[in-house]
Formats: sequence, C-alpha cells, structure tokens
Amino acid sequence: MPEALALAEQALTLSNPNPRVGCVLSDAQGGVLGRGFTQQAGGPHAEVMALRDAQERGHSVVGATAWVTLEPCAHHGRTGPCCDALVAAGVARVVAACEDPNPQVAGQGLARLAAAGVAIECGPGGAASRALNIGFFSRMLRGQPWVRMKIAASLDGRTALDDGRSQWITDTPARTDGHAWRARACAVLTGIGTVLQDDPLLDVRLVPSTRQPHLVLVDSRLQLPLTANLFAPKRQLLIYTASDDAAKAEALRARGATVIRLPGQTPQTAAKVDLAALLHDLAAREVNEVHVEAGTQLNGSLLREGLVDELLVYLAPKLIGQGMGMARLGPLDDLAEALALEWGTVERVGADLRILARIPGRDQI
Amino acid sequence: MPEALALAEQALTLSNPNPRVGCVLSDAQGGVLGRGFTQQAGGPHAEVMALRDAQERGHSVVGATAWVTLEPCAHHGRTGPCCDALVAAGVARVVAACEDPNPQVAGQGLARLAAAGVAIECGPGGAASRALNIGFFSRMLRGQPWVRMKIAASLDGRTALDDGRSQWITDTPARTDGHAWRARACAVLTGIGTVLQDDPLLDVRLVPSTRQPHLVLVDSRLQLPLTANLFAPKRQLLIYTASDDAAKAEALRARGATVIRLPGQTPQTAAKVDLAALLHDLAAREVNEVHVEAGTQLNGSLLREGLVDELLVYLAPKLIGQGMGMARLGPLDDLAEALALEWGTVERVGADLRILARIPGRDQI
Repeated sequence: MPEALALAEQALTLSNPNPRVGCVLSDAQGGVLGRGFTQQAGGPHAEVMALRDAQERGHSVVGATAWVTLEPCAHHGRTGPCCDALVAAGVARVVAACEDPNPQVAGQGLARLAAAGVAIECGPGGAASRALNIGFFSRMLRGQPWVRMKIAASLDGRTALDDGRSQWITDTPARTDGHAWRARACAVLTGIGTVLQDDPLLDVRLVPSTRQPHLVLVDSRLQLPLTANLFAPKRQLLIYTASDDAAKAEALRARGATVIRLPGQTPQTAAKVDLAALLHDLAAREVNEVHVEAGTQLNGSLLREGLVDELLVYLAPKLIGQGMGMARLGPLDDLAEALALEWGTVERVGADLRILARIPGRDQI
Repeated sequence: MPEALALAEQALTLSNPNPRVGCVLSDAQGGVLGRGFTQQAGGPHAEVMALRDAQERGHSVVGATAWVTLEPCAHHGRTGPCCDALVAAGVARVVAACEDPNPQVAGQGLARLAAAGVAIECGPGGAASRALNIGFFSRMLRGQPWVRMKIAASLDGRTALDDGRSQWITDTPARTDGHAWRARACAVLTGIGTVLQDDPLLDVRLVPSTRQPHLVLVDSRLQLPLTANLFAPKRQLLIYTASDDAAKAEALRARGATVIRLPGQTPQTAAKVDLAALLHDLAAREVNEVHVEAGTQLNGSLLREGLVDELLVYLAPKLIGQGMGMARLGPLDDLAEALALEWGTVERVGADLRILARIPGRDQI
C-alpha cells in the first residue's frame, strides 16, 4: 500500500477533479505485476493503468491482489467501472485504503467485487489516502471544496505596505513552493482588490504542470478591466458578482469569462457576493481544492464566515512594522474571541518559514 | 568537554554576572575525579568547585587534566585566580573551550598556566561555550549587553487588542518558557507604557530560580506610580529617564529605585531616554543579557536604533486581525527597507510556536 500511495501522489496535479489514486497489482509472493495512477479527467483510472502495465510487461494477473488507495468505482462516469475491469482480469483480492465517498460509489464498488467472488479488504493506508484527497472528500461529503488560504507575510504579520505593494515579501523558494500548491488546486480564488492592485497572472509557472487551475474572482461590482492579465487563453475564469450590470457582464463573457451572479440574500448583504453560495457553486462545478490568494479584505470575509479550512502561511525573516495585515478581522471584544487554529507542519522553505494551520475540527472531514 | 559544557549550563541562572562555566577533572584513563560549575557571584568558580569535589571524593588531582569551558581566570576578582588553584593542586594539563574575553584575562590565564609548566590547549567546544555566554561575550567585547526581545503574538502578529489587553495570547507552557528566559537574563527591560497598562511583576515565578533579574524601566517622563508592582523587596529597579523632576526622582529613590537621567543629546531627542547610552550603562553595571518585554512603541525604538540582537517570539495558533503590532516601525518607502532577521530554532512549546531570530551578523559576537 505504501507504493500505491506513492503512485497516487503522482496524480496530485493531474487527476483533478478526480481523486488521486494509485494501484499496485501483486502476485502471491508480493512481486509487482503492474502499477498505475489516475490520469487526467476522462483518462483511465489507476486500476486500469495498472492492468495495462501488467499486460504490457507480459504478466498474467489471474489470482493477483490489487492494492488500491481508493475503493474501485462501480459506476459509469467518464470511464467504465474499474470493478468490472478487475473482475474481468481475474484479480482474486482487492485491498482498498478507504471507501470512495462519492455517493455513486460509497461501498458499492467493494460490494460488487465481493459479489463477483473477489476477496476484499478496506482500511490500510486510509488516513493517508483521505489526506491526499482532502478536497475530493470535502466536495463529496460537505458539498463544498477544501479551502486553503495562502498568505505571505513578514514575521510581524504584514502582507504588504500600506499602499498595497507586496512584491516581494518572501523569497523565490517560497514563491516556487506556493506555485506547487497552486498546481494541486482545482481553482485559484482571488478578489478584485488584489487584481486592481497587482494585475496578477495567478497561474502555475514556477513549477511544471500539465494544467492550469481555474481562476475564480470575487468581483461584487464587476470592476474587472477587460484588459486584465487574468484573461488567459484556454483558462477558465469564473467571475462571481453581486452586480446586475448586464452590459459589463456581457463584455466579460465576450472575453471568455463565465459570469455568475450570486448576491447575498438579505438587503444588508445584497451588494456583496454570497461567499458560501460561491463555494457550493464551485463544488457543483467539480472543484475539490480552492487555493485562495487574496487581500486582507476578502481573507477576512472568508475567515469570518467560517469558509476557510486551512492556512498556508509563509513567514519571511523580516519585520515591516506598518502595513496590511493577514486578514481584516475584529475588533474583538475579548481575546477569547480570536479565531482559533491548529498547527500543522512548520518547515523552512529557503529563507522563509512555511506554516500549515487548520481551523479546528476541519481534519475530521 | 561535553560534560563540562553540560555542567556550565547548570550555572545558567546562577552565575550572573559571571560567565556560565563548567569544569571536569579527569585522570589519564579519562576517569572523572571531580566536577564543578560556577556558583553565584562572589562564590567559587567552576575550577575551584571541581577541585573541591575531587578532594571530597578522596581523589588526588596530581597529573590530572582539567576540562574547562572558559579559560581559567588569572586575576583577583571577587575570588582568587583559578589558574593558581589549578597549579597548586598539581593539575598537569588544562583544556579550555575558549579564551576569556574579559580584558583582565584574555589569554593571560592560559599563559600563566603554561609558564607554570601546565600543558594547555584551547578550542574544543568553543562555539557552544560562547553561545552559552553570549551576554558575557557581548558585554566584554562590545561594552553592551546582549539584547533579547520577547514577543508573544498571534500568527498574524498581534500582541494585544487595540485597548492594550494582552492577557493572554499564548498558553501556559509558552508563558512558563518565557519565565525560563527571564531567569537567565541579568535584567528585564520594559517601558512605562506597559507598566501603566498592565502593572506587571515581570519576575520569575513560573520556574524555580535562586535570584530575580534586575528590573530596568524606560520612563522618559517619570510617570511610574509609587504603588507599582515593580517595587518588590530585594529587587534592583533601575529607572532611566529624561525628566529633571527631582522631587519625583527622590520619591522613587525613597521606594528603593535607582533613578538614572540619560536624556538624548540633541534638542530633538532630549525628551526621550538615550537607549544606546542606557545599554552601555547597563553593561557598566555588569548586565550581560537583557530580556526585553515591552510594548510596540519601545520595541520599535529599540529595533529602529539597532539595539536588539535577538527576537524570542511566541506565536499562538490564532488570528486576532485588529490590534497592536509587534513593533512600531515604518512606514517604509520600500519593502527592501524591512528589518532583516535570520531564523534560529523554531519549536513547538505547548500549543504555541517559539521562534528565535537574530539580527544578521549579531552572532559574530
């Protein structure tokens, strides 16, 4: 199973919106017959890749064991059911790391295998597989993506000067690492304030990637200039707005963007995008992991509304003193009202520190 | 030498303002004959303690090797020269981790041993011994103490709410660890703003300690209330001021404080305490390590003036958003002007993170 999990990691930036899955076929002596991991959406799943690999290497898989990091699918999605392929190939035993949370599978894959006389086992490596697919589990179980907020700041928590300049607080290795996190996300989310300030590309360019994550822009008043760098060929740009400016929306659509009107549902919130609804809409569009790179305002709104699951913070070894903060929160009436976090890993990335932290309870997903 | 260094660490909160020194006496086979570390000021040094230990255990030290983490002293300070004691006891060889930076010693101890026919060696363990005695080296070589600034903040760099409330941002283990750092310092430095806000004790109470560090208060206008908690029995309180209010100074002296007038030397700075002069004055008073626990204002002044050597930052796993920052700096004209740091260790302390960082170049002391 460790080898199957390592294969699954190779699908990290490839298989979206499908889960990252690895499969190893082994004989009775533990010899490896074939290996595979899930390809890009519409391409073969891990099990089929492993079966093909065994075939290409001239190995029979009759009586073999399939080690797979997620329950084989039982439904016809973009591809045929993997269960049937395993049964047809004569595999005698399937060990799955965990059940597929997809309600269209959810145990049916294993049941179908068992019904076909295949010995089944489920559990080993389950935590690692879930962690690798936290966005997929989140979308399947909560109907919303896993939201990871990236923040680059000085040790004293400043993300930009007062005038918004933020290039660059962290060093190249941290920015490269940030691109690796972008690359694994289904979508990068930002706010109009950041776009008007920096006109960013928000693409994956410092690390190799076969695909670009979608772009999601929160633009309540449709202020996005038609000349913005966010308009890139072959890249999906989703603009969420509270504006009913049909002409501007049409102009943005003409530039290739998808414009979605999702205003808040009360008179007090009608001028702003309903961020919770936005996330549900993204889930409906098969977005598993959202990578937020926004300013203090949108960061604050997402955090206050409880919509963030994880922080990815790069701290640079410097003090700035005066400038923009990580997120506009408060003022608090009491320190006990501070937004609580739980530390994940803390690592050096080049000259900077990388801190992962989660909102308590979110890793129960 | 590792054992001698471990002994030296036992003098961490004890030997101030003397350096933390350990000594092991061994025979030709490496068997330990005696161990010692420097006692409180005026008490015996490590070498004398080790000689006494050997005697108490009935061991002769004739022909022995003395492993000592700092060059044995050659001068009469509060005690007699350790060199002479080692020679008199018949020690044949002395291995010192490093030379004593005290200009009254500075190689003379080793020279005196050599002149008496003792084999000498200097170097092994030198870096560790210097690190342990960074304040002593700083005072001897720079004429100023090592200044360590302690800051407790949320991940987003907030040290208090806007109204100054800061109790508590970090958890008990971090506060206890902070007391351990207080305990090793010769003096705790704070500003009048913090005293008026919190009326703190700033003593060592969460960890055992045989002594309390001196208290140093920056109080430019002599605003300290005569009822403040800083007035504690048997504890030296040094108040630095720019005020010429003789009556208030006298009242403070009557409460046991030492009041030192050190205004800035230009018309622009005359209303404030000259912080660089303050540190030189503390060095003259044999202060090796200063532990700063102050507010954003004094922190900013000390940092801007280049008077801080090291930051000891506790980050709590929470976001506060709006509140006081770590240090009032800036506004900067450019991000390149940010105050640069170098990371030291990063560790979990209870629920919090502890980050040590230094101003670049300071560990060349």
